[in-house]
This record gives sequence, structure tokens and C-alpha cells, in this order.
Amino acid sequence: MNQTRDIIIIGCGAGGGTAAQFARKTDRKANIAIFEKGRYPQYSKCGIPYVISGIIPKISDLIEFSEEWFKKAKIDLLLETTVEKIDTIKKIVFAKKGNDVIEKPYSSLIISTGAKPFIPLIENVNVEGVFVVRTIDDAEKISSFVGKGRNATIVGAGLIGLEIADNLRKKGMKITVLEALPGILANTLDEDMAEIVAEQIPDDVAVLTNHLAVKVESTSGKISKVVVKNKESGEEKTIATDLLIMATGTKPNVDLAKSIGCKIGETGGVVVNKRCETSVKDVYAVGDCTEFLDFITAKPSLVGLGSVVVRQGVASGVNAAGGNYELLKGVLNTSTSEFFGVEIAVVGSTTKRVEKVSSIVTGRFNGFSLPDYYPGGKPISVKIVVDKYTGMIIGAQAVGDNAAQRVNTLACAILGELDVEILRRLETAYAPPIAPTLDAVTLVCDIVSMKLSRKR
Amino acid sequence: MNQTRDIIIIGCGAGGGTAAQFARKTDRKANIAIFEKGRYPQYSKCGIPYVISGIIPKISDLIEFSEEWFKKAKIDLLLETTVEKIDTIKKIVFAKKGNDVIEKPYSSLIISTGAKPFIPLIENVNVEGVFVVRTIDDAEKISSFVGKGRNATIVGAGLIGLEIADNLRKKGMKITVLEALPGILANTLDEDMAEIVAEQIPDDVAVLTNHLAVKVESTSGKISKVVVKNKESGEEKTIATDLLIMATGTKPNVDLAKSIGCKIGETGGVVVNKRCETSVKDVYAVGDCTEFLDFITAKPSLVGLGSVVVRQGVASGVNAAGGNYELLKGVLNTSTSEFFGVEIAVVGSTTKRVEKVSSIVTGRFNGFSLPDYYPGGKPISVKIVVDKYTGMIIGAQAVGDNAAQRVNTLACAILGELDVEILRRLETAYAPPIAPTLDAVTLVCDIVSMKLSRKR
Repeated sequence: MNQTRDIIIIGCGAGGGTAAQFARKTDRKANIAIFEKGRYPQYSKCGIPYVISGIIPKISDLIEFSEEWFKKAKIDLLLETTVEKIDTIKKIVFAKKGNDVIEKPYSSLIISTGAKPFIPLIENVNVEGVFVVRTIDDAEKISSFVGKGRNATIVGAGLIGLEIADNLRKKGMKITVLEALPGILANTLDEDMAEIVAEQIPDDVAVLTNHLAVKVESTSGKISKVVVKNKESGEEKTIATDLLIMATGTKPNVDLAKSIGCKIGETGGVVVNKRCETSVKDVYAVGDCTEFLDFITAKPSLVGLGSVVVRQGVASGVNAAGGNYELLKGVLNTSTSEFFGVEIAVVGSTTKRVEKVSSIVTGRFNGFSLPDYYPGGKPISVKIVVDKYTGMIIGAQAVGDNAAQRVNTLACAILGELDVEILRRLETAYAPPIAPTLDAVTLVCDIVSMKLSRKR
Repeated sequence: MNQTRDIIIIGCGAGGGTAAQFARKTDRKANIAIFEKGRYPQYSKCGIPYVISGIIPKISDLIEFSEEWFKKAKIDLLLETTVEKIDTIKKIVFAKKGNDVIEKPYSSLIISTGAKPFIPLIENVNVEGVFVVRTIDDAEKISSFVGKGRNATIVGAGLIGLEIADNLRKKGMKITVLEALPGILANTLDEDMAEIVAEQIPDDVAVLTNHLAVKVESTSGKISKVVVKNKESGEEKTIATDLLIMATGTKPNVDLAKSIGCKIGETGGVVVNKRCETSVKDVYAVGDCTEFLDFITAKPSLVGLGSVVVRQGVASGVNAAGGNYELLKGVLNTSTSEFFGVEIAVVGSTTKRVEKVSSIVTGRFNGFSLPDYYPGGKPISVKIVVDKYTGMIIGAQAVGDNAAQRVNTLACAILGELDVEILRRLETAYAPPIAPTLDAVTLVCDIVSMKLSRKR
């Protein structure tokens, strides 16, 4: 007689929630429980900036799967429940919900504990009006500091920082963005591509690159000013602000995984294989707490993208429930964002990430989304990074019209291990109101192909 | 001592014009001449419907490369020049421009004579007010028949017919579209996908499927009515019309190529290889007058797409000038269009084109372009055709948001010979304002993957 499977999932983010869903699809009879320390069932973290601006009307709109939904799927969702200890010998999870102690055995355990914000050293940062943007609770607290004509300062000009800057500006706030590095989006795009984005940030947004926030000044416990320092000149100045948002990245939350001896990788994330198994028997890990191999470099890379997290959720859920689902050999890290009316997208390696370890050739095409003779064409820039010896595409960046969908095509080319000589011949769809005869995704390959033929 | 190359190109459409351009890029010293029977240098035929509506303001806007441009490139463009004879032994082209006879030797000859409209048998069709839409001259003549509140009848509910219908409607005309087949877009989409488009055609457009135009009635030499016949019931009725547009397809114009013995294929087009060489030495052919292998079926297929024509132009131009450029093993036939606010796109094989010769599995995903919680998501439907035994994608159709760019991704998957098991794991770019966590292009693969696993 087969015993009923007991699947426990720690964390009901996109990874844990998806895992539960696919575990249920794979095994209709298993006992599935999720322990979630927060107050909400599975919701979209990526949607939070748009709740702040009101584009998404209500915070509750972010909830993708309700308590009701989990109930119907016969998944036991325990909110405000904190896991205290895991016994991997007896295979028991010990948790606390209020004053209740919960002891629950598992046959498979999925750890989806996510990431915690990384906060740089800033003096007096623990005052009212200083926030990270990670949870619904953060979003709720921020709301009361948002207001027309008030000042907001964002620390970090990465994707999240700029998304928040744009959404706070939509509420009529005066925006300052501080960035410690010499340019915006330094971890996302090459400098020349980031420059194209920077040119399109409205003049009323102050972007201070090479600047650190060093000290917060407060009045009756509330932030009133932030002291910033120019890293080059050493000069300090004080900026009046009613709200300070830290968008300075995250680090994997691996405390629980570490406590049971899961191998932690060089990036600080839990090491998992293509089935999302950790080094501990019957324990899986998914999402922002894990690292996974990069598709191109085969080196460990932190998982920090919703699209990857969801796919890990599928894999861990299916496998924990006795099925078999393997991920690709690595992550492509396809991602996109939009702020100040500019769409950007990226996949694979940027120049700066690989130029020291690989021989590469890059090319950039700047053009328009429609044929010259058709009105309304929008700018589009596409850059690709190509291995000099194989001609294979190992990275792509796009800024402008349909950047994301264009990058999806290039992601598919990377996945198919196509070289530029093949991809430049790809027939893309053409019609005057929709796209030019030859699309930017192939024209950029022509440019690199010419460079390669000159170098050979 | 090397002799200077003499390259003659017959026809200055997208194929011939591009050939000239790339011949010049390849050989800076060659003598290059284009003989064009029409009055205009290279212009966009695909743009003509949008000149009729005024979206493209002037007919002259359609000209992509001016006489001036060809002059600067030192390409001798002879307009209103008709080729009368080609001597392939002495390698001389004989042409006529007005009363002048031109005799010009060639070392390489490129035939780009395009296609001519196919007109079904309709009684009394040669009256004023009946047009095809193929050239700038057609567009000019049509203009005087366009007017608010007037009636226009379009024969043929294919891509061109519907584009023209939409553009004439934008001028305030009352539109009737006649289609001999049981549904619209029968040569482009599967029935279920065409149905999605059909539902979005506005109610004030009368689409009569299973209907033939059988007779034109005229008053003082101008069309006044068209008699149409229901193919099923045999019933005839008369429709008042001020303008009749024949959008009933084309056939390759191979008269010249045939006259010099170029091999003509089973489709009626000139047979060419990957270098665009015909069966006659030093004679190339490109564009709508040619046939080429289909990438999927490896069977000959007529070339009728601007994107393919331009690529053939590149190949023939480079090769005629002594370079080396090979096309892919076949054409993907990626194409797109937009009418009545609906974008459609397609690549590779449709179900009906291959279901009799291949074992296939298909799947369709209907969803939205954005996550559920983000406002403004638009419908998108994607259908793929997959080889049952290899799991490889052999065709894709999309209707709705960014259909063209989504089909480009699937075209890349076909080119890379990816199977659904790989493609369903493709990380697509995700951000709430841009795309859902899992895009339609991978979700449709999940659907087919499930069907395949049940069938195995």
C-alpha cells in the first residue's frame, strides 16, 4: 500500500505557491501544506510599484491566488506561521502560529524563503519614512508618505529603483535618485545602452550618480533630510526629503536552509540541481533564496526573476510529488522593465559581465519600429554580445519599442544556440503598420557579422 | 587585368533595387544598370493600402530609394524601359525606352519581374472603377473613386483584401467583401484562428463568404453594380458599388525568364538555388517571379513576401558582383498584417497545409498580454503546429497583441529546430506593465507538450 505523500512548502511567494499548485497537479492525493510567515497568500511582488502610483487600484489586486483558491485546491495554507526548526532525520517541521506550536512531518520539503533587502550603511536609517519595497506591508506603509509636491529620494538606480521613481513621480512627488555607481542600470545594461535610457529620464527627476546616502536627518522621529556624498569629490550636501526608499538590492534568505545543512554556494544562495533538489535528501529549494547555473557561463548566479522563480516552482512541485521535471541547464536571465515611458529588456550576458573572461564581439543597431515611410515609428536600439570564435549569441539588450518581445526572440536564439550568420537570415514578420522589412533583431546580427568577417 | 563587371537588373521593385544596392556594396567598380518598365524607382508595394486611406500622406512617400539615391550609388536606373529580348549566348539585353533601342551587354543578369494580378473570370470586368492594387499607378487611379458614403466592393478576403477594406472604410466608404471560400484568410490561418479575426470585423462591414463576383454592371462605362453568386445556394444578388477592387492574388511574371530557357517550377515560378541562380548561366532571379523551397516541407513555394524578396535581393546582388551569399535552406514565410485593429501573424505551416502529409499535434492558447492584476491587458491567441514524432515546431499563428513579435520568437524556434519540450522552458521577459510571468509563446507549448505526453 502506498503511503500518502506529505509535502510541506515554506514560503508562499511565487516559488512556493507555484510549487504547491504543481505538486497538486502531479499528485491528487498528497497532503500539501504551506507555511507562510506573512499575512497574505501568493501575491505579485513585482506589482508593488504600480500599487503605489495607483495604476493597480488596490493592494488586494496583487493577490494572484487567494486563500479560497488554495482551499479549493485542498492545499493547507497557514499564514502568519513561522518555521522554527526542521528535523531532517525524523523529517519534521516545527512552526509557530501565534501561540500555537505546529509539528508536521514531511516526505518532501520545499524551501522558498526568498530574499531580504540589502541595506547599505547609512547613519540614523531607522526612522519613520525610510522604506524598502519588498512586501505588501511595505507598500501600505509607504502610502501615507506619498503626496503631491512632497519630496522622495530613492537610493539605487537599478530596475526597481527607477520603477519606483517613475511611480512616485506619477503621484506628483519631486524625485531624487541616488546611485553609488557612475551610471544608472549598471548591473543590467552596458553603459552605451544605459545612456540611451538615461537621456529619456525627464529633466525634473534628479539622478545623482556617484552619490551615496550617508546619513538621515529626522524631526520627531520622521525623516526630514538625507545627507548625500559625492564619491569622487567627497563633497557632501543635504537634500530635503519626506520619503526615502532603499532600492539597493537583496540577498538570499538562507537561514533555514543553512540550519539543516543545505549547501550554500559562492553567491550566497542555496545550491540546487535541475530538479531543484538541495544537497539534503528530500529537500528542495526554489526562488530568490537559491543560486543556479547561468546558461551562458555555466557559473552560479543568484535567481532573482519572477519568470525563473515560477519555473523553479513548477519543477520542485512536480518532483516533490513524485513526477519528473528538469529545468534547462541554466538560466537565461531574461528580464524587462519600463519607466518614464521607456521599455528595456535584456537576456544573457552583458559586455561587462563577460569581456574579461571571453573573446567577444558586440554590435548595436539603432533604428525604428516601422518602415521610414509609415508614420508613428518609435526608436528601438538592440545590442548583442557574440562569442568571437563560435559566432554564437550570448547576450542581448534592447531599449525602446517592444524591447521585451524582441529580446524574447534573441533569448530563443540563445536557447537554440544559433550563431549570427543564421540569425541574420531569420525572416521576421513585415507589414508597414507593424514592423520594417528587416527587423532590428536581424540587422544587429548583420552588423556583428561584418565585424566578425573583418576580424577573421 | 580584370574586366569591369556589367550587372543588369530587370525590375526595380524591392528585389531588384536591393540587388543593385548589394551588388554596389560588393563591387565598387562594377557597371550596374536597372531596367524598370514603370515610372517610379524602388517603392513599397505593401504601403499602397495606407496611401489610399491617407495614413501615409503622399504617394511619393512610398518611394524608398529615389532616382537621386541610385545616381549617388552610381547605379544607372532606366525608368519606363521595357526589356524586349535577351541573348544569353552573346550576353546582351535588348530594351526599349520610348523610341530608343538599348543594347547592353551583361556579365551577370538579375531578373526581378515580379508578379501580375490574377483576375478570376467576371463578366464585363473591363470598365472604369474596377481595379487591382499592385502599383502606384493603381493607387492614383483608385483615389478618384474613393469617397465618404460611397460603396466599395472588395473581391477576396485574404490579407490584402482585408487591408484595403479597412483603409477604404477609414475614408468613410461602405464596405462589402466577397470571398469564394467558406471563411476569411483561408490561405493564411487555420479556421479557428481566422474565426477569432472574423469576430472582430466591425458589423458595418459586410463579409460574404462562399460568394463569387460573376458580373459587373456599368453606366456610361463606369461600374454601378456587381452581381454576386452564393456558391452553395446558387442564388444571385446585385450589390450597388462605386468601386470594385480585385484582391484575388497574383501569379509570377515569368515571361522573360521563360523566353531564355530558365527552368520554371511546378508552382509556376522561376526555380532558383540558395544563391538565387537560375538554371541559365550567370542569370539570377529574385522576388515574386521565383519559387523557393519551404523551410519545413522542403517543397517549392512561391515567394510572395517583402521580407523574403529583400533577402533574395541581398543574395543575388552579392553573388552577381562576385561575392558569396547563401540563403537559408528554405523560406519560413513569416508574415503579418493588421486590419480593423487586429494584428495577425503567421510562420511556417498551418494545420491545413500539412495535416494530410504529416502527423501533427496542435495547441492553442488564448490569454492576455499582461498579468491579470495589471490593467490594460489585451487578448492574444497563439496556435502552434508540432510534428508528433519529433516534437519540433513547424508552424505558428498569432492573433492579437504583438502577434508579429511573438511569431518572430516562434520563427526563431523553427529556425533553431527547437522542440516544444525545450521551448516551453524558454524564459521570456516578465514585468507587470509589459508581459505576464509566462508568455503565450511558452504556454502554448505547455499545452502541446501535455497532448504529446498523452499520445505517447
